Amino acid sequence: MLRWLVLFSCTPLLFSQATEIRMTINNSAAAWNRGDLVAFASAYEDSPETTFIGREVTRGGTQAILDRYRRTYPNREAMGDLAFSEVQIRTLAPNIALATGKYGLKRTAVAGGDASGRFTLIFRKTAAGWKIIHDHSS
Amino acid sequence: MLRWLVLFSCTPLLFSQATEIRMTINNSAAAWNRGDLVAFASAYEDSPETTFIGREVTRGGTQAILDRYRRTYPNREAMGDLAFSEVQIRTLAPNIALATGKYGLKRTAVAGGDASGRFTLIFRKTAAGWKIIHDHSS
Repeated sequence: MLRWLVLFSCTPLLFSQATEIRMTINNSAAAWNRGDLVAFASAYEDSPETTFIGREVTRGGTQAILDRYRRTYPNREAMGDLAFSEVQIRTLAPNIALATGKYGLKRTAVAGGDASGRFTLIFRKTAAGWKIIHDHSS
Repeated sequence: MLRWLVLFSCTPLLFSQATEIRMTINNSAAAWNRGDLVAFASAYEDSPETTFIGREVTRGGTQAILDRYRRTYPNREAMGDLAFSEVQIRTLAPNIALATGKYGLKRTAVAGGDASGRFTLIFRKTAAGWKIIHDHSS
């Protein structure tokens, strides 16, 4: 009985966590698709401990992340149109969650052509909401 | 004062977590290098929720992980000699940790040649010790 009470009392919390993180991910895609890299980078925690593993490793706060995106996607055409799919969210601790999924970029051939891959994001709930503390995209 | 007491009382715990996880990672490399894929796969949590993102996504327990490795590395020559480097460990919660680093495989040209890349591992402390619940390697 106690077990069920605990289960029911936790469910809304877990549900709301996943919903909040999905909203953050959707907001990121919307920021990307209006060409707003500053808003896109603000999804990452502004901390020297934040890490991004892509072809290279980027460490640092939102400015380091922003610089990395600006180098890799120097103009609106190179950014293309971003969509996330197969997004799955697992709660690892009350303030830690893992999000995985696919990203897809629609781009003209001259801008680099379509691109796609998979991501692992670790989110931490901070005073400013859920923030990405680690990103591994490939 | 209380803050310092809390800090000092937590430090041995965090230190021992990172040490335990490093040992697990070192044991994995040792298992690989003696050709023991069963022991290597046992570092993953035997749960249907365990995920591995490589070129494809693998879901499932140690058997699914083992099958994936056996497909990708069908013989001892293809496995080559594994070394991990630049290993960094971050504690995310008392029972959750993030490990990142590089892997390198030394292999003969006929076995596929040298290979290297980066990994993100999420560990959870279970009754059987620290286990990988998510792996993203690229």
